[in-house]
Amino acid sequence: MAGKKTPNPEHVTVDDEFWSPRVRRTDTATVDTVYRQLVESGRLENLRRAAKGISGDEQVALENRMYRDESDVYKWLEAASYALSRRSDPDLESRVNYVISLLEGAQRDDGYLNSYFSLHAPEDRWTRLTYMHELYSAGHLFEAAVAHHEATGESRLLDVATEFADHVVDIFAEGGGAPGHQEVELALVRLYRCTGQQRYLDLARTFLDERGREDSRFAREMVNPDARLCTDEIYEEYRDLLFDEDGTYDGKYIQDHLPVREQSTAVGHAVRATYMYAAMADVATETGDDDLAATVERIWSNTVRRRMYVTGGLGSSHENEGFTSDYDLPNDTAYAETCAAVGSVMWNHRMLQLTGEGKYGDLMERTLYNALLAGISLDGTRFFYANPLESDGEKHPLEHVSKVRFPLQRGEWYDTPCCPPNVARLLASLGEYLYLVDGDELSVELYAGSSVRTTVAGSTVTVEQTTDYPWDRTVEISVHTDTPVEMTLRPRIPAWCSDPTIAVEGETVTPDVERGHVELRRTWRDGDKLTLDLPMPVRQVEAHPEMTAAAGRVVLQRGPVVYCLEGVDNDHSLENVCLRADARFSTEYNPDLLGGTVVVRGEATLTATADDESLYRSRTSPANETVTVTAVPYYAWANRDETEMRVWMRACDCTH
Amino acid sequence: MAGKKTPNPEHVTVDDEFWSPRVRRTDTATVDTVYRQLVESGRLENLRRAAKGISGDEQVALENRMYRDESDVYKWLEAASYALSRRSDPDLESRVNYVISLLEGAQRDDGYLNSYFSLHAPEDRWTRLTYMHELYSAGHLFEAAVAHHEATGESRLLDVATEFADHVVDIFAEGGGAPGHQEVELALVRLYRCTGQQRYLDLARTFLDERGREDSRFAREMVNPDARLCTDEIYEEYRDLLFDEDGTYDGKYIQDHLPVREQSTAVGHAVRATYMYAAMADVATETGDDDLAATVERIWSNTVRRRMYVTGGLGSSHENEGFTSDYDLPNDTAYAETCAAVGSVMWNHRMLQLTGEGKYGDLMERTLYNALLAGISLDGTRFFYANPLESDGEKHPLEHVSKVRFPLQRGEWYDTPCCPPNVARLLASLGEYLYLVDGDELSVELYAGSSVRTTVAGSTVTVEQTTDYPWDRTVEISVHTDTPVEMTLRPRIPAWCSDPTIAVEGETVTPDVERGHVELRRTWRDGDKLTLDLPMPVRQVEAHPEMTAAAGRVVLQRGPVVYCLEGVDNDHSLENVCLRADARFSTEYNPDLLGGTVVVRGEATLTATADDESLYRSRTSPANETVTVTAVPYYAWANRDETEMRVWMRACDCTH
Repeated sequence: MAGKKTPNPEHVTVDDEFWSPRVRRTDTATVDTVYRQLVESGRLENLRRAAKGISGDEQVALENRMYRDESDVYKWLEAASYALSRRSDPDLESRVNYVISLLEGAQRDDGYLNSYFSLHAPEDRWTRLTYMHELYSAGHLFEAAVAHHEATGESRLLDVATEFADHVVDIFAEGGGAPGHQEVELALVRLYRCTGQQRYLDLARTFLDERGREDSRFAREMVNPDARLCTDEIYEEYRDLLFDEDGTYDGKYIQDHLPVREQSTAVGHAVRATYMYAAMADVATETGDDDLAATVERIWSNTVRRRMYVTGGLGSSHENEGFTSDYDLPNDTAYAETCAAVGSVMWNHRMLQLTGEGKYGDLMERTLYNALLAGISLDGTRFFYANPLESDGEKHPLEHVSKVRFPLQRGEWYDTPCCPPNVARLLASLGEYLYLVDGDELSVELYAGSSVRTTVAGSTVTVEQTTDYPWDRTVEISVHTDTPVEMTLRPRIPAWCSDPTIAVEGETVTPDVERGHVELRRTWRDGDKLTLDLPMPVRQVEAHPEMTAAAGRVVLQRGPVVYCLEGVDNDHSLENVCLRADARFSTEYNPDLLGGTVVVRGEATLTATADDESLYRSRTSPANETVTVTAVPYYAWANRDETEMRVWMRACDCTH
Repeated sequence: MAGKKTPNPEHVTVDDEFWSPRVRRTDTATVDTVYRQLVESGRLENLRRAAKGISGDEQVALENRMYRDESDVYKWLEAASYALSRRSDPDLESRVNYVISLLEGAQRDDGYLNSYFSLHAPEDRWTRLTYMHELYSAGHLFEAAVAHHEATGESRLLDVATEFADHVVDIFAEGGGAPGHQEVELALVRLYRCTGQQRYLDLARTFLDERGREDSRFAREMVNPDARLCTDEIYEEYRDLLFDEDGTYDGKYIQDHLPVREQSTAVGHAVRATYMYAAMADVATETGDDDLAATVERIWSNTVRRRMYVTGGLGSSHENEGFTSDYDLPNDTAYAETCAAVGSVMWNHRMLQLTGEGKYGDLMERTLYNALLAGISLDGTRFFYANPLESDGEKHPLEHVSKVRFPLQRGEWYDTPCCPPNVARLLASLGEYLYLVDGDELSVELYAGSSVRTTVAGSTVTVEQTTDYPWDRTVEISVHTDTPVEMTLRPRIPAWCSDPTIAVEGETVTPDVERGHVELRRTWRDGDKLTLDLPMPVRQVEAHPEMTAAAGRVVLQRGPVVYCLEGVDNDHSLENVCLRADARFSTEYNPDLLGGTVVVRGEATLTATADDESLYRSRTSPANETVTVTAVPYYAWANRDETEMRVWMRACDCTH
């Protein structure tokens, strides 16, 4: 590949107190939970029947949504493959092989693979790209296949994928269509990188450039409902999402409102958007397409300046599961879908590959520790679909829309269960996000106890990190090499850190921060050590004044971790305390709380007390009693009781 | 009647700058608008067909909701009757008589009157009290009939009503059922007061005591859907509202969870609740039922201490259109249905009749000037169904539930158009709420330029008020009588007024405030004057700390009027300003703004400024720039542009 390269993931080992237990739980509990749900929901049974050629009518009914069910199977296969790359597990291996055999059986002779279409509506293949998710599912197959091949060295699943991919190339290489839900674009680039087949990269680019045409194929497809393919309800949902009230095609929901190269703001469905932006970065990296690179950088700037939660979460509204308008970032109804956090991590990783700019690593880090981790319970078996930044502990404000979709605590499965296997595959592949190599440069993008063996400046080098990040400020990076290597070590300096100290072999050095990194070029010898000290005081963070949901409020952040208040740790209503600008904080690592965490305690002012029963009264002097508030990482919320929660706390507004 | 008596409304004349134009617009524009909608919606045409005996299938379809459509017709008749009591209007009179003739035609020989049942399902009468609204509609007929009789002296409509009422007595006098939507109870008391027929009062009491039985008839009725009577959708809606998730009957939605005498909190659908509480007060007044009186006082205390918006609005949630839990009073999603404000004014008026306590007059006043008036546009032709206390000016947060039900500006009509004719009949009968008479006492409950001629202590007395209330603090009350009368004048001293001054014939007197009133007993001679001075500085009002939606916030209130900020009057985001405790306010009457209003201007602190484009940054020192904010009465909001609005403003929380 071009750009900054990700070291072969099998040569990255994560071994620390923070991520390792999470990766381990993903490999076991999460992969197991998702598999059980694939069985219980009938997904595997349907694939089995498809493999046997049993007719569509005898499929296990899944509320008419079978057409995209295979994507969940593929994401599980991808996660399971990463797990197998780390540890031998005959049970898991046989499950993986069983599923692969079902896919082999269900694949048609021409390479086509989608059991729903093959059995229910074979003549309708590729007719409703807008919402039937054939290409989306294909993309997840391609990703799973690459992961399986890299993890096991086997080609069974890769063969299924390339046969299908070649069929897709046959159909779409000359244009005429694009996926209604992006994903296959980035998957094709991945398949290209794995196989070296230029046609996959070309098709990814074609799919990108097929969007936003004046005579939109998506708009044309939406002329009539198609009873054979989906319910009226689903069709109507898409009509509402894609057309204005006056019936004019809008297309923003699927980023089809403008040619991608003319887009400049993050709009529409957030998962579709992030997958597409990731693919734009990929194609720009591989083809040197500066226009595409400039476009995706522009969209990124819009996103982070106007349309992103402090957790890195993306998408304000449940209605389009996506972006709304600038600074519209409500807390209690925040959608911030877990899958959009997955997409954002993937997007930012690719922006790093494209540019090497630390700001993308910053956002990858912000999203991982906050928006993404909040999506999964500490035990790895329950998941949030939406991630609100505020809860009253009694009732989700969107409960009337769907009690299942908007619970107060994480659920094991969802009507559309995209998030559980998605967060699984991301966590299971965490090692890929830590390091990047480019010629004689090795960039360290995430801090975690780990080691990487890779080739830098033509030599095989092992780099080891030792750290208790994100709880501790010190990161030690040591180089192991048979022969001295002249190379540049590029540790990222997080934007949240205002006064880092860097020492090489115990000697403080003061290099400039360039593009978010310090660039330490020297001849590195075996055993050389680089020490980073990244002071992480508890910071009060405020938002741009246009963001009304945060007006008069602050967030507590320590290092990359955004904190929240939970009712279970605090005696007072969380709205009745506010933080002074000069509040003092103490931090303490508690190994027994929430899987081990630094707890933040701080002084706050209690602004209201009840003197009597009256509901309304003339304004009284504030009590100004100082109380202690206890904050825990946002990602860990709702792992105990159903409880009140706030990310944005009230800020006392006077200086005094 | 027993208790404090309302003077004959035809002997009360309202003549002031505030209410008179509103009553006038109600009599003309509102009554006209509602009539046009009755025609356009097919309601009158359906009645016409019913009168002709045309079969049900040929009725004008009204989304299967015809079974309660007549209630809108009745409420219009009631409002139109009040209008006719004030002014001759041959057009309106002929419309009224035309509608009455339709009702005469549609009434069955046995007195039964409900065109929906008569034509669609005659054999199903009285089988589905839970949701088919026969008794609810009957109640509105009875109220309209009394109003028409009192306004015109004619008996045509009253005859229709008493025939129907007698039929209802035949069916229900021995128990066995109660209305699924309360209303008929208070209407029966009204019919009793008009006709003197004890059986109507008895039935009202029976209906009250039929609720909350262990073997609830409502629960039994809900066993099966009844396709002939309503759609599955309506049936399912009621099932969800009346039963717990585990299928257990709950009944709170229709206040059937406990016998009324065992109830102590305001629960369920707010309109049903207020109508029922009003009837409880009525029956207690007429029968001396102390148990019922104590019960309704207990529920009232719970309501005003835990479950009432600062505007007097009732009902926090759109899901049950009603009460939720203590202190749960969200601003942006507030339901606070206009009809519930109507019901609350009626309830509090009846509590005054029962007890003479000024606190009920206080709440009647609060509700009238705020929750109720907000429901109608300044020109009298558009209406809010729900009355949020906060808007971002771009999108109602419940828009995804119903764009029609939750607009940003008032609409002319609604899917269920209960509110427009309800606010019309309330405003058209405003005169009834001003004065109460009890033997030798005359209480003044609302301040408005007006006069009343009534009998006090056996003499005919005319009492006149002259005031520019609510804009001005001075109220002059003069007595006109042929012979001196020893009587007690009881002007209410509003709880918001901490330092009233009272002068009789120019001499300051200092009577105690007893039960919310000053009681001025003396021999009043013709021309004697009582002057009230009720200072109305702009007050900052705060809420009980448990009410999280108001934590760290205050409301501006002047006299009885709750103010709000609207974006159209203020340059800054309404969330970025906050009020210091020592803020100074100026007031100015602007005759050209919003129909003539006192505008409040005050100092506020601008707490945030944008230095750069970053969405999140370390907390900066607050700007502490002082800006002027402009507040207008809440009731007048959304009469100009679609604009941001806040009732609860941020409060600076330090003392200095």
